[in-house]
Amino acid sequence: MSLTFELTILGTGSATPTLRRNPSAQVLNVREKLYLIDCGEGTQIALRKNKIKFQSIECVFISHLHGDHYLGLQGLLSTFGLLGRQKELHIYSPPGLEKITQLQFELSGSKATYPIHFHELTMDVHENIVENDHLNITAFPLKHRVPTYGFLFKEKKKLRHINGRVTKELSIPHYAFDKLKKGEDFIHPESGELFSYKALTLPADPSFSYAYCSDTAYMQKLKSIIKGVDLLYHESTFLHKDVILARKTKHSTAQQAATLAKEAEVKKLLLGHYSSRYPSLKLLLEEAKSIFDNTILTDDGDVFSLSKSDI
Amino acid sequence: MSLTFELTILGTGSATPTLRRNPSAQVLNVREKLYLIDCGEGTQIALRKNKIKFQSIECVFISHLHGDHYLGLQGLLSTFGLLGRQKELHIYSPPGLEKITQLQFELSGSKATYPIHFHELTMDVHENIVENDHLNITAFPLKHRVPTYGFLFKEKKKLRHINGRVTKELSIPHYAFDKLKKGEDFIHPESGELFSYKALTLPADPSFSYAYCSDTAYMQKLKSIIKGVDLLYHESTFLHKDVILARKTKHSTAQQAATLAKEAEVKKLLLGHYSSRYPSLKLLLEEAKSIFDNTILTDDGDVFSLSKSDI
Repeated sequence: MSLTFELTILGTGSATPTLRRNPSAQVLNVREKLYLIDCGEGTQIALRKNKIKFQSIECVFISHLHGDHYLGLQGLLSTFGLLGRQKELHIYSPPGLEKITQLQFELSGSKATYPIHFHELTMDVHENIVENDHLNITAFPLKHRVPTYGFLFKEKKKLRHINGRVTKELSIPHYAFDKLKKGEDFIHPESGELFSYKALTLPADPSFSYAYCSDTAYMQKLKSIIKGVDLLYHESTFLHKDVILARKTKHSTAQQAATLAKEAEVKKLLLGHYSSRYPSLKLLLEEAKSIFDNTILTDDGDVFSLSKSDI
Repeated sequence: MSLTFELTILGTGSATPTLRRNPSAQVLNVREKLYLIDCGEGTQIALRKNKIKFQSIECVFISHLHGDHYLGLQGLLSTFGLLGRQKELHIYSPPGLEKITQLQFELSGSKATYPIHFHELTMDVHENIVENDHLNITAFPLKHRVPTYGFLFKEKKKLRHINGRVTKELSIPHYAFDKLKKGEDFIHPESGELFSYKALTLPADPSFSYAYCSDTAYMQKLKSIIKGVDLLYHESTFLHKDVILARKTKHSTAQQAATLAKEAEVKKLLLGHYSSRYPSLKLLLEEAKSIFDNTILTDDGDVFSLSKSDI
């Protein structure tokens, strides 16, 4: 099975879309299940442009109800239906999105041909919202002008690999493999001999993690939630020279994003949600890099694929 | 003063936007006042791409509340605000749009910084909805799956031109010019002599008209409403071989659009709102041209500018 853990950035702009940047949207592919994170206007076109398989989207996470983070959703929901989708869809967002969606379906005299489950985020602490075989997804409140959530995608511990050479040599029966892979020792039922899983297996592949924090003012307390993640996307709407504006609008500066990345000891920081006021983003990158070197200035269409070799 | 009468096509696709075609949106420029007709997802980007001056949009006309005709509006309204708009905006649409817009503003914790006036279209006959110095705009019901309106933009009769050579020769006083331009004769207050406006003026420039009919099933009775317009945009979602589907979904075929154009004796027919099922639109054009020769297959970004020489 493919062990894909791949993030595609669909939009890196902020409030006003430009010819150069779409508003916020990303797709996280974890083992070919797709998770859409925010869905600004034009996201369905960005999905096509990036050749992403629409219909594999299982869950949509909307951070907050500012237009640049969700106005592409209604069109996408409608396109899902026109393309014959039957598979259910789960949508996680602060309260209100279901009402908007229902009103729009109603006025268009149509409804979704597939089940849509809305999950309202109202908690004020870090909480689990999705769990499946491979992944835990949690949400945590951010600090913005309207109720806003960040999301943390954390792969579960993976199974160890059977060391075929050794298990064959020792004639370990196949039925023992599942437990061994989970890291449990095996006692041979006939001989009573104990085999350590460590001797019969090779280490599991690494489990990856991704945190999405947009939009938000600087929040020092995110540090414990996103501690050590492989990838952190943190908005950096402004340069630190505009920190007063950032504070007023409850956004972050590149310096603040980098400070958090450093304090939380993340592996890599991805910047985005740039204000359109800066003709070049070079200064944003320099500002962040001076604090946290492994920083990337993301661009629409960027793909970040994690694999063993990244560890 | 510029006598511009120019239509820019921003989107020619139908329900599902593609990489090739935006959903419905157009801008009509009449003497530098801009009228936005429909506003599918991505319209604000299409406006930028076509270098149209956003803020000169005075009125928005939404034909109906299917997503491909209005989902770009909320983003545009928000961008107007972010760009500092203060000028009022008038929006004409079937009922419901105001509720959606208000809900979206409310949930985003914001409101428009400029006055927005919503005008609900509910009439079942052809009616005047806007009148200004240069233009009459009327709306008329179309036949679609939800309440839908077509729009007719008709320039008022223009003023005749003073024939400077003659007025100078006959020493006609300047204060007489306004009346002469309107086609009224002039009696000299001293001599009592009557001067015919025909002798002192040259004919007025032509007055142009444009009719927008999308989305709609074939409606023979539109003939009298759109009689003789210079430009008719009529949806042609399907080829006539798919007329059963057209009837079912209340759309038109290219043949039907052309039949109406011919019966209404319009000057030029613009086709659009193409189903994405046809790999090439050549057959749509051939089908229409076999009935009404002056037919154009519109494309995103096309501009139709009318001037004296078109008459």
